[in-house]
Amino acid sequence: MMNYQKILVENIHSTAIATVDAEGKPVNRIIDMMLEKDGKLYFLTAKGKAFYDQLMAQAYVSIVGVKNQASISLHGNIRNIGKQYLDEIFEKNPYMKQIYPDDRREPLEVFEIYEGEGEYFDISVTPIVRESFTIGEVKASNHGYIIHDTCIGCGKCIDVCPQNCIEEGVPYRIIERHCVHCGACMQVCPQHAIEKSNV
Amino acid sequence: MMNYQKILVENIHSTAIATVDAEGKPVNRIIDMMLEKDGKLYFLTAKGKAFYDQLMAQAYVSIVGVKNQASISLHGNIRNIGKQYLDEIFEKNPYMKQIYPDDRREPLEVFEIYEGEGEYFDISVTPIVRESFTIGEVKASNHGYIIHDTCIGCGKCIDVCPQNCIEEGVPYRIIERHCVHCGACMQVCPQHAIEKSNV
Repeated sequence: MMNYQKILVENIHSTAIATVDAEGKPVNRIIDMMLEKDGKLYFLTAKGKAFYDQLMAQAYVSIVGVKNQASISLHGNIRNIGKQYLDEIFEKNPYMKQIYPDDRREPLEVFEIYEGEGEYFDISVTPIVRESFTIGEVKASNHGYIIHDTCIGCGKCIDVCPQNCIEEGVPYRIIERHCVHCGACMQVCPQHAIEKSNV
Repeated sequence: MMNYQKILVENIHSTAIATVDAEGKPVNRIIDMMLEKDGKLYFLTAKGKAFYDQLMAQAYVSIVGVKNQASISLHGNIRNIGKQYLDEIFEKNPYMKQIYPDDRREPLEVFEIYEGEGEYFDISVTPIVRESFTIGEVKASNHGYIIHDTCIGCGKCIDVCPQNCIEEGVPYRIIERHCVHCGACMQVCPQHAIEKSNV
């Protein structure tokens, strides 16, 4: 499997990070992924930002970046590690000196994404491709659409699948790697044999 | 002012959209901005996705896209408009046919961002530049750091500002357009004359 964390730092770099504000609304902004170490990711922000308060309150982020029509998303738990790795981040990302000159870095603190789950998703190919990955000690969760044993093999799901990613068999099987999660199969199944989980 | 909605559709196109899930956690993914009409923005998704459920539940999104180191963010209210503009969206975005062939578009529905507030933010220039804009009938909210009349003109804020965007005067004044919202000025002000709002 590819090292998606490295791609987030080296190829995408400017990612969108979502948090939730005090009113329960999502907030999105571009934050650069500054470092990758042992599969963990590092970014920084300034103490004066609402972003900082939201990070401290929920200790959780949802990230997504895009490159060449493929996206890498990642959600997981974060922790504030203060000034750790700050010098290394500035060395590897020299453009930061333009924004925060040497003697004016006091507001900055570093955050570590230490565990989470992610997905690579490419809709520029036919069929589309998705692939999951994890960071840290988390177990990958099942997600996607599943066809249960009550399937009677009528083939209605195959007729509506935009990705042609359902295989005949007993029961029929959805190839999760190519599934776009549109739900069309579940809608037409006369047996209600198709279940959605965590999509 | 630039038409930032048009830039989101024509130049950035693949934007990150954040919603909140049933557990109150942020969820981010890449969604293409398909159309712009009279300043309103349109995107689509499939009914089978968790994204669809989250859109219907909160009717609010936070979007951000990046191009050439500048970002455009936007948060606001959305509504489901069903199949309206779906044909036009497929005409203007022919790659969609690869993902959803003509006879397999049933799961798709269109959403309209009909009002909201946004910000252009460029950290690749010195000083950084930010500029707000609105969609629909919303009034722009004040945000940023403000120096109140209790300022004694000691100059401590100027010494720590990484963007050199504080002007002398009575009181001193922060040039919001160039402020990076780090909060360093507020931290050092002996008069507690600096206030943060909606940053």
